[in-house]
Amino acid sequence: MSKTAEILSVGTELLLGNIANTDAQFISQELSTLGVNVFYHSVVGDNYRRIVGALELAKSRADIVITTGGLGPTYDDITKEAVAESFGRKLVLHEPSLQKIRSYFDRSGSVLTPNNERQAMLPEGCTVLENDWGTAPGCAVEFDGKHVIMLPGPPRECQNMFTHRVKPYLQKFADAVMVSRNIRIFGKGESAVEAELHDMMENMTNPTVAPYAKEGEVMLRVTAKADSADAAFSMTEPVVSDILKRLGDMVYGVDVESLEEAVYNLLLERGLTLSTAESCTGGMVSARLTNIPGISEVYKGSVVAYSNDVKSKVLGVPAELIDKHGAVSEQVALIMAQNVRKILKTDIGVSVTGVAGPAASENKPVGYVWFAVATDQGSSAFSAQYGSGRSRVRTMSVNRALDLVRRQLLNI
Amino acid sequence: MSKTAEILSVGTELLLGNIANTDAQFISQELSTLGVNVFYHSVVGDNYRRIVGALELAKSRADIVITTGGLGPTYDDITKEAVAESFGRKLVLHEPSLQKIRSYFDRSGSVLTPNNERQAMLPEGCTVLENDWGTAPGCAVEFDGKHVIMLPGPPRECQNMFTHRVKPYLQKFADAVMVSRNIRIFGKGESAVEAELHDMMENMTNPTVAPYAKEGEVMLRVTAKADSADAAFSMTEPVVSDILKRLGDMVYGVDVESLEEAVYNLLLERGLTLSTAESCTGGMVSARLTNIPGISEVYKGSVVAYSNDVKSKVLGVPAELIDKHGAVSEQVALIMAQNVRKILKTDIGVSVTGVAGPAASENKPVGYVWFAVATDQGSSAFSAQYGSGRSRVRTMSVNRALDLVRRQLLNI
Repeated sequence: MSKTAEILSVGTELLLGNIANTDAQFISQELSTLGVNVFYHSVVGDNYRRIVGALELAKSRADIVITTGGLGPTYDDITKEAVAESFGRKLVLHEPSLQKIRSYFDRSGSVLTPNNERQAMLPEGCTVLENDWGTAPGCAVEFDGKHVIMLPGPPRECQNMFTHRVKPYLQKFADAVMVSRNIRIFGKGESAVEAELHDMMENMTNPTVAPYAKEGEVMLRVTAKADSADAAFSMTEPVVSDILKRLGDMVYGVDVESLEEAVYNLLLERGLTLSTAESCTGGMVSARLTNIPGISEVYKGSVVAYSNDVKSKVLGVPAELIDKHGAVSEQVALIMAQNVRKILKTDIGVSVTGVAGPAASENKPVGYVWFAVATDQGSSAFSAQYGSGRSRVRTMSVNRALDLVRRQLLNI
Repeated sequence: MSKTAEILSVGTELLLGNIANTDAQFISQELSTLGVNVFYHSVVGDNYRRIVGALELAKSRADIVITTGGLGPTYDDITKEAVAESFGRKLVLHEPSLQKIRSYFDRSGSVLTPNNERQAMLPEGCTVLENDWGTAPGCAVEFDGKHVIMLPGPPRECQNMFTHRVKPYLQKFADAVMVSRNIRIFGKGESAVEAELHDMMENMTNPTVAPYAKEGEVMLRVTAKADSADAAFSMTEPVVSDILKRLGDMVYGVDVESLEEAVYNLLLERGLTLSTAESCTGGMVSARLTNIPGISEVYKGSVVAYSNDVKSKVLGVPAELIDKHGAVSEQVALIMAQNVRKILKTDIGVSVTGVAGPAASENKPVGYVWFAVATDQGSSAFSAQYGSGRSRVRTMSVNRALDLVRRQLLNI
């Protein structure tokens, strides 16, 4: 599909920051899989003059304008009026929509007000998009090759309307299918990954490779366009293999959601169980792992030993060892991992102990962290320095702990 | 402040729907409390021509344009170039920023690439906004009464930069001072809170009271405008007292950040210590508590007993009790709280055990959760039903557990 689209969201609540624009995110994702290019999003308040201005601009830039919001029953819901004006159309009563709204009110026992009847007034000659998830019908108006598609604002209605009404409406413009593969990388920064792949990425047009950074991680998205999903998928294959070859075990997964999912998959595959002993991450490793439904098959639990007392009493780290080396030390990390593995009776134990900050402790700087992984084959420890920022130190430590388990599992 | 502002977010990942535009939401909320009107948001991809066009349009409509994104190290990060062009300025090396980036890389042991050095190139004559949360400095360029303020895209950096750099920068345009007080409420929905305060909220103009809902919580923001901060603060006082009187112990704090902060403050005040025993929340209660710097004074740790085996072996819950009543039961919750309190030697123990889903277990429905709180005075248990949605069930359970500890502390 060589059409371009633009999303125009209408609603003062967006400009006040009361809600995030998740409608625009959802619609963008969907348009991207349809191969429709989106070059702009805009948000405008419930102001007639500004809505008409924003519409005119959007129509001048894109083939398809999708509006969200402003279809409700109250006086400040004026998207349809603005669209009708911009196409020189009148609003006319759409009898089937009125019937539908009426029966909705009958069912819920509420009384229909003239306001609600306004929701059945639609631009003359439009394609009506029936709303089975709320009272406001959507609609599409076309003139001279420009399409404006209006959807209600509440995310559930908007998303269902897009999936079940707009997608079929847009199919008629489709001339290609896009398929994306997501390659997840840990242990290398965005610029280092880009430097490594620069020669390859530079001259690609189809498929394309685009990097995205998130805290401590990089994602590469490989996207191909073809006549069918199968053909597009096949086009991504050699590119994905080439990247895997270049980046080796820095890649923790293709089309997986997260490091914890990669760990979960490996634990299942190997038939092994895991437990964790956390100090500075205070339960975050465990919280991340238990986000995954079904993890209880392979993950047994954690001892969050935030105080040294708990490290000794529950995890059995000798108090003298803590006195001698400090709680943030190779020695303590090793015993934490070994003992949590024994106490919780799992195949693998992993530990984290560090200085999250803001204050340094034990004469060790903020961001200094020790990790250990224990199995029946022995145990090993690793240290890292994550600079400052309590939340960053903790998040980086969680990622690193998960990655150490992943690397351990690759060697079992 | 009678200025208007507009937010221009730069990043193809927004147009592809990879992320929601939470930066725009945050900045809008903040600008609204500063009394700055926001009439438009726009999003544009990493395309030089389109960024320049969107900038020109934004500058023609608003006094202050805040850009987010496009300050990273890679070739497609070009916001500064576009802004420099639109003001007819050159980019010049800002030596202190380069030093800062260098020392950031030294600390983390990574190698500085020429790409990263580009991050220290800033428009001539700009006001540099130091970034203590990442490598990309922000900056503000002004000409002829128009201001363009550039912030990095990653939400943590963007939000900290706005709070600590942009707010002080914007103060100079202020013709009045706004002071906001945030009243935090747990245990009542947004519409119930609004109904309770309707008579009071309806006719207010200065101060104003605005409700914000977040998962399982409501925040009321009381904002007053006056010549001085002291005068504005005084104006909020009677309104805050009135709301506290009406809502009673539903209010967990005024100007505190979170339930965990309220719990932390009460523990410090009472000189008491806490431990947690978690099943379905898998460490999230502990992770939330340990977000707070200094919490180690009052919080000792957690046993995350994700499997029943750990509930028995580590927490000493008799296996027969689990067999008889199930792990999600009043009886098991009580023993978990009592025993974690004893094992970790704290004044208070709190436990959570529930069905997070997606599958039901023990013939108990998804969302069914038991909580218990134990002290030296005895213990009590509570149950709740949070409907479906694994992530929602877990988040609601964490909030409820923290609130139970808070209510317990109010009675000690």
